[in-house]
Amino acid sequence: MTKLEELKTLLKELKDYSTACTLLSWDLHTETPKYGIDTVVSSLTALSTKSFELSVSERAEKIIYALNEPDEYDQLDDVYKKTVRKLKKDFDESKRIPVDFYSSFVENRAKAESVWREAKITNNFALFAPYLEKNINNTIQLYKYMRPEAEPYAAMLDDYEKGMDEASIDRIFNELKTDLIPLVKAILSKPEPDASKFKGDFDINKQKELSHFLLEYIGFDFERGCIAESEHPFTSGTCRNDVRITNHYHKDDLLSAIFSIIHEGGHGLFMQGTDEIYDNTPFSDCGYMGLHESQSRIWENILGRNINFWKPIYHKLQEMFPEYKNISLEEFYIEINHIKNGFVRTESDEVTYCFHIILRYELEKELMSGRLSVNDLPAAWNAKMKEYLGIEPETDTLGVLQDTHWSGGMFGYFPSYLLGSIYDGMLLDKMNEELGDIDTILAEGRAKEITAWLKEKVHRYGGFREPKEVLMAVCGKEVTAEPLIRYFKEKYTKLYNL
Amino acid sequence: MTKLEELKTLLKELKDYSTACTLLSWDLHTETPKYGIDTVVSSLTALSTKSFELSVSERAEKIIYALNEPDEYDQLDDVYKKTVRKLKKDFDESKRIPVDFYSSFVENRAKAESVWREAKITNNFALFAPYLEKNINNTIQLYKYMRPEAEPYAAMLDDYEKGMDEASIDRIFNELKTDLIPLVKAILSKPEPDASKFKGDFDINKQKELSHFLLEYIGFDFERGCIAESEHPFTSGTCRNDVRITNHYHKDDLLSAIFSIIHEGGHGLFMQGTDEIYDNTPFSDCGYMGLHESQSRIWENILGRNINFWKPIYHKLQEMFPEYKNISLEEFYIEINHIKNGFVRTESDEVTYCFHIILRYELEKELMSGRLSVNDLPAAWNAKMKEYLGIEPETDTLGVLQDTHWSGGMFGYFPSYLLGSIYDGMLLDKMNEELGDIDTILAEGRAKEITAWLKEKVHRYGGFREPKEVLMAVCGKEVTAEPLIRYFKEKYTKLYNL
Repeated sequence: MTKLEELKTLLKELKDYSTACTLLSWDLHTETPKYGIDTVVSSLTALSTKSFELSVSERAEKIIYALNEPDEYDQLDDVYKKTVRKLKKDFDESKRIPVDFYSSFVENRAKAESVWREAKITNNFALFAPYLEKNINNTIQLYKYMRPEAEPYAAMLDDYEKGMDEASIDRIFNELKTDLIPLVKAILSKPEPDASKFKGDFDINKQKELSHFLLEYIGFDFERGCIAESEHPFTSGTCRNDVRITNHYHKDDLLSAIFSIIHEGGHGLFMQGTDEIYDNTPFSDCGYMGLHESQSRIWENILGRNINFWKPIYHKLQEMFPEYKNISLEEFYIEINHIKNGFVRTESDEVTYCFHIILRYELEKELMSGRLSVNDLPAAWNAKMKEYLGIEPETDTLGVLQDTHWSGGMFGYFPSYLLGSIYDGMLLDKMNEELGDIDTILAEGRAKEITAWLKEKVHRYGGFREPKEVLMAVCGKEVTAEPLIRYFKEKYTKLYNL
Repeated sequence: MTKLEELKTLLKELKDYSTACTLLSWDLHTETPKYGIDTVVSSLTALSTKSFELSVSERAEKIIYALNEPDEYDQLDDVYKKTVRKLKKDFDESKRIPVDFYSSFVENRAKAESVWREAKITNNFALFAPYLEKNINNTIQLYKYMRPEAEPYAAMLDDYEKGMDEASIDRIFNELKTDLIPLVKAILSKPEPDASKFKGDFDINKQKELSHFLLEYIGFDFERGCIAESEHPFTSGTCRNDVRITNHYHKDDLLSAIFSIIHEGGHGLFMQGTDEIYDNTPFSDCGYMGLHESQSRIWENILGRNINFWKPIYHKLQEMFPEYKNISLEEFYIEINHIKNGFVRTESDEVTYCFHIILRYELEKELMSGRLSVNDLPAAWNAKMKEYLGIEPETDTLGVLQDTHWSGGMFGYFPSYLLGSIYDGMLLDKMNEELGDIDTILAEGRAKEITAWLKEKVHRYGGFREPKEVLMAVCGKEVTAEPLIRYFKEKYTKLYNL
C-alpha cells in the first residue's frame, strides 16, 4: 500500500466512526426516549474516544509525517496536500495538550454547562460566575498549549472563521455600528406594525408538510437528506448524500417554523452541494462557521424575507392555513420584517441581530484580555444593550445568561454569525450582477437558480477554501459591510417610510 | 480489577458497540435517505467487525476462560455463571470457524439475498436455486464447524428456540395438523364474510395517532421507547429503557397498521419488562425467537382479536375514522377473524398461519437431510399447499419465493413462529386461572393487568430462562398444542356457526 492509500484507509476508518457519532447525536436530539439517553450517550462517548485515539495514534502519526516529507508531499494533488497539512497541524496541537489538563478542561466545561442551565432558569448569575471564570482561564490555557506562538483570543477567532482576525472584524463591525445605530433609532420611532393577526392554531402536521415543501422549493434533495423534529433546529449529516435537518413546531406560531426551516435549509444546501472530491477529507463539510452561516442566513433573511420569494408560493400558505386567508401578502411581508428592540438574540430580526452579536464580541474581547472581570460582566452587558438598543433587561436570564456558548467554552464563535450576514450583502450584489435581478428571479419562482449559483460559487468547495478566499474569488474584493448596510437602508427606508 | 470487573468492562465495551449498531440499523430502516445508505452501511459494517473482533480477542478469551475456572466460577451469582458459560460456548464455536470459510459464507449469503429479491420480482426460481443450494450446504458446514458433535439441523433449531428439538416439534405440530385440517375445511365451507366495508381512505397521521394510542393502551412506556415508520414493521432497541418499534401505514387498509402495531407492541413490552439485573449481559433481550414471538402473537391474536379487547376502545376508532361509524363492533370482530386460504404467510389469519409454518418446517427438514433436492422444492411446496389449504399458487413468487429467511441462511427459524402461538394457548389457560376471566378483564379496559402478569411470568427473565423452563415454571407442564387447538375450536365454532 502506498502512503496515500494508507492515509485514505485511515480517513475511511475515522469517517466510519464519525458517521456513527453523527447519527447517535442526531438520534439523541430527535428520537431517543427519556430513559434511553444514558445508553446512547455511553455509546457516543465510547466511539468519540476511540475515534480521537485513532486520530492521535502512532499509526496516524507515521502516515501523516511520512506524507509531509517532500518526496511524498509533492506527489499529492491539492486536496490531499491540504489534507495532510491540516492533519499535521491538528495532530501536533492535540499532542501538545497534557492529558490531565484536557480531562479537567472537559470536566469543568461539562459542569459549567449544567450550572449555566440552572443559573439561567433561576436567574442566578453568581452561581454561574466561578464556572465561567474557570472556562475562560481554561480555554486560554488550552490555546496556549495548542498554539504557543499565538495570542489566545486571536487563535480562537481563527478556529471558528479562518483568516478573519480581530483587526478585520473591528473594522467591519465599526462600519456597521456607525450606520445602523441611527437606522434602528429611526425605525423604532415609527409606529409598530400590528402583529395580532399572526397568532393562531396551526396544525403541527401541516407545519411539517410546509417545511418539506419549502425545503424542496429552494432545492433541497430529499433523496440525499431528511427532516425530523427537535427542540432547537439544527443541521447535521453523515456526508453530502445524507444531510439531516431538524425543525421545531409551535402550535401558536407558524413564522418560527417557516424561518427556521429556511435557515437550516441553507446549511443543508451547502452540505449537499459540496464536491465529491472532498469525501472523507476534512473539507467534506465546511468547518468555518461564518461561511456556513452566510448560507443559512442568506436564505432565511435576504431571500426568505424578500416579498418576491413569497409571490409564487404565498397562496400555498393560505390554502394550508385558513388563518392566512385574511392576511394579504403585503401584511405578511411587513410582519416578517418587523423590527423590534428585544432582549433575545435568537428571536431578533435581521437588523437588531447585528447589535446582539457586536455586544457579545466586544464583551468577549474584554473578558479574554482580562480588562473586564466576570463579576462586572452583567453590568457591562446591560450598559451595551442600553447603548445599542435603548433597552435594559430586567433579569440576567434575558441578558447575559441567555446563550449557551460561553458555558460550552465557545469563545470567538459569536462574530461568525454576523460575518455570515456581511458576506451575504456582498453575495447579493454579485448575484444581481451575474444572475440578473434577484427580485425578478424570486418573483418568477426560480429560487433554484440561486441555489445553483451558490453551489457553483460557494458550496462545491466545502471547507477547502477559506472564507476570505471564497469572498475574494466570488466578489473580487476584501470583506466589507458596505453592501449589507446598503441593503438594510434601502429595504427599511421603503418599508418604514423613513 | 477482579476478573468479574474485567468481564463487566468488556461487556460494557461490547454493549457500546451494539448500541451504535442497533441505532445505525434502525436509522437505515426508518430515516436514512436513499443515497446515504452506503455511508451508513459502511459505518455499521466497520463497527460490527470491531465488535466481533473484540468478542473473539485474546483479551476476551483470557477473561472468559479465567472465569470458567472453578475458583472464580463458584463465586459468581447465577446471572454471571450463565453469562460466562454462554460466552465460552459462543467463543469456542466462533473460534472453530475457519476465517476463509466464514468470509465466503457471508459473501454467498449476501449474494443469495440479492438474487432472491430479483428472483421473487421476476418469478424465476431457477435463478435463485443454485444460491439456495449453496446456502444450505454452507449453513450445514458452518454448524459442523461450530458444533461438530451435533446434527446440523438440530443445532439450528436449538439456536432459534433452545430446547425445542425435532422430536418435540414433530409431536406438537402433528397434534395441530390432526385437528386443524378438518377445522379449516369446515370454516371454508361456510359463506365468506363481506369485507367490502373495510376499504377506505385512512389518514396516515391519524393511523400514527391510533398506533400510539394502542401501544399506550397495552402498557408500552413512551418514556422508554418510541415508534417510527418503516416498510416492514419490526421492534429493536438499545436496552430495556430504549425500545424502538416501527409500523407501516397503507391509506386503504387500516387493519394492517392496527394489528402490526399490536404485534410489535408485544415484542416491545417483553423488552421493556426485562429485569435490570440482566443489563449488559447476553440475557438483556430474549434471543429465543419462539418465546419472543409468543409475546407479540398473544397480543396480536389471542388478545387483540378478542371482541372484548375492543369493547372499551372501539368508539375511539369510530371517532378517528368516519368510515368506521357504519361498522358495528360485531362486524369489526368478524372481519378481524376472517379465515381465508391465501398463499401468503404474512397476510394469513391466525388459524391458516399454522399450516404456512408446518409446510415450511417439513420442507426444511427434507432439504437439510438431503431427501429433497432444491430443484424439486417448488413442486413439493405446491403439493403441500394443496394438501393443507386446498390451493396451489400460480407463481413461485406467491409460493416458495415469498419469504426472505432461506436466502438469509435462516434455516430452523420458521417453527419458532408457530411455537409462539402454541405457548400462547398455554399462557391463556393459565391467565384465566390466575387472573380471572380474561374476557372480563379486557371488556373492563384492564388490558394492562395482563401486561403486568406477563411481565411477572415471562418478561422479567429476558433471555435468562429457556422457553421450556418458562413454560414449565408458569404452566407446570410440557409444551402442548392442546390449549391452542381448544381455543381455535371454541372461538371459530361460535364465529362460523360450525
